[in-house]
Amino acid sequence: MAAAGTEFLLVQLAALFLLAKVGGYLASLVRIPPLVGEVVAGVAVANTMLNDTLQIAGSDDLLFLFAELGVVFLIFTVGLETDLKELLKVGGTAAWTAILGIVIPFGAGLGLFLALGHTMTASLFLGVAMVATSVGITARVLAEMGALQSKPARIILGAAVIDDVLGLLLLTLVSVIAVQGAVSPGEVGVILLTTGAFFVVAILLGLGTLSVTMRGVRTGSGGPMTAYLRRPDFLIALAIGLCLALSALAVEFGMAAIIGAFVAGLLITAGTGGTPSGAHGESGIEHGMETITQFLSPFFFIYIGLQVDIAVLGSTAWLILGVTLLAIVTKLVGCAIGSWGEGKDTALAVGLGMTPRGEVGIIVALLGLQLGIVGQEVYGVVVMMSVLTTVIAPPLLTWAMRRVEDAEIGEPEPVGHLG
Amino acid sequence: MAAAGTEFLLVQLAALFLLAKVGGYLASLVRIPPLVGEVVAGVAVANTMLNDTLQIAGSDDLLFLFAELGVVFLIFTVGLETDLKELLKVGGTAAWTAILGIVIPFGAGLGLFLALGHTMTASLFLGVAMVATSVGITARVLAEMGALQSKPARIILGAAVIDDVLGLLLLTLVSVIAVQGAVSPGEVGVILLTTGAFFVVAILLGLGTLSVTMRGVRTGSGGPMTAYLRRPDFLIALAIGLCLALSALAVEFGMAAIIGAFVAGLLITAGTGGTPSGAHGESGIEHGMETITQFLSPFFFIYIGLQVDIAVLGSTAWLILGVTLLAIVTKLVGCAIGSWGEGKDTALAVGLGMTPRGEVGIIVALLGLQLGIVGQEVYGVVVMMSVLTTVIAPPLLTWAMRRVEDAEIGEPEPVGHLG
Repeated sequence: MAAAGTEFLLVQLAALFLLAKVGGYLASLVRIPPLVGEVVAGVAVANTMLNDTLQIAGSDDLLFLFAELGVVFLIFTVGLETDLKELLKVGGTAAWTAILGIVIPFGAGLGLFLALGHTMTASLFLGVAMVATSVGITARVLAEMGALQSKPARIILGAAVIDDVLGLLLLTLVSVIAVQGAVSPGEVGVILLTTGAFFVVAILLGLGTLSVTMRGVRTGSGGPMTAYLRRPDFLIALAIGLCLALSALAVEFGMAAIIGAFVAGLLITAGTGGTPSGAHGESGIEHGMETITQFLSPFFFIYIGLQVDIAVLGSTAWLILGVTLLAIVTKLVGCAIGSWGEGKDTALAVGLGMTPRGEVGIIVALLGLQLGIVGQEVYGVVVMMSVLTTVIAPPLLTWAMRRVEDAEIGEPEPVGHLG
Repeated sequence: MAAAGTEFLLVQLAALFLLAKVGGYLASLVRIPPLVGEVVAGVAVANTMLNDTLQIAGSDDLLFLFAELGVVFLIFTVGLETDLKELLKVGGTAAWTAILGIVIPFGAGLGLFLALGHTMTASLFLGVAMVATSVGITARVLAEMGALQSKPARIILGAAVIDDVLGLLLLTLVSVIAVQGAVSPGEVGVILLTTGAFFVVAILLGLGTLSVTMRGVRTGSGGPMTAYLRRPDFLIALAIGLCLALSALAVEFGMAAIIGAFVAGLLITAGTGGTPSGAHGESGIEHGMETITQFLSPFFFIYIGLQVDIAVLGSTAWLILGVTLLAIVTKLVGCAIGSWGEGKDTALAVGLGMTPRGEVGIIVALLGLQLGIVGQEVYGVVVMMSVLTTVIAPPLLTWAMRRVEDAEIGEPEPVGHLG
């Protein structure tokens, strides 16, 4: 065919999607989160003859775009699932858990990498990668235990939201510092202003669009415009459009696309909460977005693996172990201190629940790699740390949640059917 | 950023998605199918300064890939919505309607373009473009009238399915002939064998995968494998994977990707029909795929518009009118003769319902353009014919369906709330 090259891109995408899904399936057989299997599938492709067969090197721009779309929709879904009001309910404990769970790992990561002789910019990045909490993985574990409404779960989810917002702000600040090389107070001020301006424009744009369309849906005259707004697919299209628009806006403001995606998700959940029809409203949007994420996120996870060079990895095994241990201990200690007032069993569960770095740590590492701040070696270390914390945390969290349950005899909620 | 070029691709995609959706919205305000507005948005971008601002020319490969993914998921969704058993129920009338609705427009299109001095290959392509029926548009109109269960609707949908299958076979045959330049009986035999081999491999692969996984879902031991298969997102991933795999397989067999996508959709609907849970089964897959189609199909429709050069179009206004009239009359006459036995009101409704060419006619034209068989001028003519039949048919179908209803007084089914 005339478009033979383009036709092969479709074959490439199909092959990578299937390989990622097989990796995820194999991981699930040994009770490891599927995303880990998807990353490992990427490592397998990159370090075998599949790399040549699939002509990975020749399509890097395209694969990066699909990876980026994957993470944009992944973070958008996290934003959709985040209810800002929950923050106010869990209040102080969640806030202290989040803040201490950020400060201690950040300080430890920054200190360790400065001590190892890395640049300040690289060390700042690695500090941010240590901060990340993957709310998606924790929430999935709690949901599978049927324990989403328990006290530790509420604290974890509340703290994870604050952690996400502060972590993304920290990432924005550090990445803009990295790009512009800005360290003077005046330049940091400009960065904060630009970041602030993005949030103002994004929130006004998002809430403005949502307010106009939602009023159209609720009070429309019944004409063709109202009919269009009430179509079951309209809210889906609106959600996709807002996600893409704010992601592109973030890029234009010199920020990561995922920050725009996260804001879009938050705004839509806040702005459509009162939609009359459940089928077309929040749950419909969430279900639909999860399907798009199902389609696109494997390209993100397999892309992560594609960047890992096994030869480099072997020489850093001790560093990986050390960084992973530091990541677990600092997050556990920081979050446990923050939630100590709720009892030590709850504090332990909260600390372990905040431990998995998952995709968020990897996103930070990938951004560092693309900005040229972080080398192949350190990139591999952070990816492995993110993967290991994600693999280790779920069984420990399950065990800690059972201790909480045992301490609260009489509560009828069933847990533990995972074991 | 290091990946600044790639970041801009995201901005491009966001801009094109939003422009397509605005076009669709404006079209719906004047009661025109939204896809027409999306095509017109593409024409607007291609023929104004937006073409330079969005750097369309520099990203043609990428935009084509998104357009192709859009049409792959669009046709996959049509396949999902197609129930092969329905064919047997409406039986003879639908078959005759489909066959005469193919033969007469094909012959007329072929004859007209041969008479106008086009090559045999180009004329064959144009014949196929005249054959296309957009079952999606017709079904949407009937659903909006609440008349999906009426007799004309059942005949139309049955005939549309046969039309799709035969039309895609005809397209395969003609496109392989075009690529290989084969006209001798021996070569046609090879094409038919290759095509047959694809269908055998695709059906065995698809049904094999579905049969193994469905048995796992129903009779699994409850171990981690069964747990994975029963996850709400597993069937979605399976559906996406099968769609991509069979589309890639079709490409590898030298056929259009959409043929693989259509077969995948048919197989999934046939293979998961008995899934225990409705939420995770057929309807869940369909809803999810419609969301992906919502995301990707605008890239297909706007890409179609991007290929239209208004300057060329102006000089072919009479040809467009002539071809459009021929497309309407031949389809109407062919289908009406096929369903004449059901009464003339029903026959009229069936004929009009089969008239819209929609995306199917455009897919054929685009394929012809990409294979270098059809020039800019004729491409524009077929696109405009597809757009015009799609715009004209819905109101005429609505009118004809009301005549059928009036003739069958006593039936309580409400219709006509569109007018």
